[in-house]
Amino acid sequence: MAAALPERLSDLGEWELLRRLAAFAPPSQLEDDAALLQDSSGRPLVVNTDVLVEGLHFSDATMGAWDVGWRATAANLSDLAAMGCRSVVGLTVGLVAPGSTPWPWVEEVYRGLSAALARYGGTLLGGDCSGGAQRLLAITALGHLGRGAIQRRDGRPGDWLISSGLHGLSRLGLALLREELPLEQRGRLPAELQQRAIAAHRRPQPRFDAVAALEASQPAELPWRVGGTDSSDGLVAAVAAIARASGCIALLERERLPLDPAMAPWPHGERWCLAGGEDFELVLALEPAWAEALLSQLPGTSRIGCLEAGPGPGEGLVLWQGSAEPLPDDSGGFCHFQNPKKAAPKGG
Amino acid sequence: MAAALPERLSDLGEWELLRRLAAFAPPSQLEDDAALLQDSSGRPLVVNTDVLVEGLHFSDATMGAWDVGWRATAANLSDLAAMGCRSVVGLTVGLVAPGSTPWPWVEEVYRGLSAALARYGGTLLGGDCSGGAQRLLAITALGHLGRGAIQRRDGRPGDWLISSGLHGLSRLGLALLREELPLEQRGRLPAELQQRAIAAHRRPQPRFDAVAALEASQPAELPWRVGGTDSSDGLVAAVAAIARASGCIALLERERLPLDPAMAPWPHGERWCLAGGEDFELVLALEPAWAEALLSQLPGTSRIGCLEAGPGPGEGLVLWQGSAEPLPDDSGGFCHFQNPKKAAPKGG
Repeated sequence: MAAALPERLSDLGEWELLRRLAAFAPPSQLEDDAALLQDSSGRPLVVNTDVLVEGLHFSDATMGAWDVGWRATAANLSDLAAMGCRSVVGLTVGLVAPGSTPWPWVEEVYRGLSAALARYGGTLLGGDCSGGAQRLLAITALGHLGRGAIQRRDGRPGDWLISSGLHGLSRLGLALLREELPLEQRGRLPAELQQRAIAAHRRPQPRFDAVAALEASQPAELPWRVGGTDSSDGLVAAVAAIARASGCIALLERERLPLDPAMAPWPHGERWCLAGGEDFELVLALEPAWAEALLSQLPGTSRIGCLEAGPGPGEGLVLWQGSAEPLPDDSGGFCHFQNPKKAAPKGG
Repeated sequence: MAAALPERLSDLGEWELLRRLAAFAPPSQLEDDAALLQDSSGRPLVVNTDVLVEGLHFSDATMGAWDVGWRATAANLSDLAAMGCRSVVGLTVGLVAPGSTPWPWVEEVYRGLSAALARYGGTLLGGDCSGGAQRLLAITALGHLGRGAIQRRDGRPGDWLISSGLHGLSRLGLALLREELPLEQRGRLPAELQQRAIAAHRRPQPRFDAVAALEASQPAELPWRVGGTDSSDGLVAAVAAIARASGCIALLERERLPLDPAMAPWPHGERWCLAGGEDFELVLALEPAWAEALLSQLPGTSRIGCLEAGPGPGEGLVLWQGSAEPLPDDSGGFCHFQNPKKAAPKGG
């Protein structure tokens, strides 16, 4: 009898790996976008670490070094915003690159990173650098919580589901940059839409403004309770994460999908809106009164559905409203443990 | 005329790269072992990021997965201790590994990491994982400052230089694990020394106990002022870092080198004591009264030299006491940007 081979990471996939690693942390510690450090004396601090690997998360084919720095920073800060941060303390950067890497590439990465910090606050706090087989950035961002935390498990039945903006543009931008689209299809896309899509992919914006609007719109009679996450892994993945952590069923309204009108006629439009990923919007679960106040306060925000009573904590489901049809919970994330050449973004 | 090729990271080396990257941070921000977050309300927080790459910082040839986790954590926590931390909040882990990596390897790394946290305090706060071409860990550790900060620039002329322990053992352990030594040389090393050396390399201990002793020994009449760093890059590199940041000349006493007596007859003994690296002891610059109090409080601590007036901030020098002979400032660190197969630890 042949001995059983040990499981490999590519057998597990990213989510199963994260689930197993969570056993090494306190219960629920790894559930949210970032870690909340309870502090009895000062303002609570939020900490988030993201790793970005060349060939998986960025490549020379789709963006320059400046954009790599901006995007790595913005993606990381988006996780802070998704936890309810209002201000950025700064970040540390672990830089790994082969010795053959040109210094001007590194310099441009740090210029992009510094530009994002200048825009959103905070400073470069520290870091480390090392040689290695491929370029990568491991960024840890620190921020101060605003009025309260936004957590995935804080959705309740009856909450409205709110999106802070449109979805699918970043995936369209990636498709344009990779020249995935037949020329004939590309020719039918308005130039203005193409530009916005590429900007959405290269220069994402963490939605600290949406956190500010959330605070400003809190009705006096309601205590702080906000379910939410960001949509970096895709809109359905964000909604599913809230539904699962809150033990609710999420109902999405098909006619209210936050899809750019210019993308609506596009064959991939709905799919990329639901699962394209990397739009870095906030997806929130709020009591209707608070949700209505936020909708009137923050242009671009829309109601996309609601939560109803579900199977309980740890279980969750996303359905089209008015249908028993479950949406594919496409939250497997990018297939980061496969061969980079085989890995393709979801919805692609 | 051929166009000039851009500089590559291997042309710069690690220290020049770090010097250039420091331009993207506030002045002096990247000078110390870790970043100090000044906080008006709570206890100041200290943040440190280390990247450990397989083939450069660890390998299957020299340690198992459990030791990789312990060592990565202990090395990172040593930087917190070197800033004056007394307690660990926890750490985030960015894990990169090829999909072919066996899950049991990852599990053992996290077991070693958890064992170090159980020993020194703190929890796993969060992290990220991704596929990639080689295994690496990017760890960010957070801790609370004790009574005051230990900073490289806080040495003053007249200070005594203190080492919290012996140096060179870790480098000997590495040599044994790599089978660098001729059998005949190895045969002359006592078995007990070999065991201690391997343990020093695989299971380093961050010296939070030395920070506690430092606080306990502070003379009532002296304000908090402690120059210092840890000796992860080697003893001379640590002394040189303090001398440079403080603008002093450091004088080392050759007969007071903190060399294990069992290593003294060994041909590499003095060299590995001075530049072997990865002993993770604290090297401190203290007023004599405080230094004497610490020496009587903490067994294993020794006086290794003193600081005298020097060329001013940003400049520094390490000399043998009683001689104008400068010690090689071997603070180039490991050659991390060279081909891993060519890179050799200093003093090797």
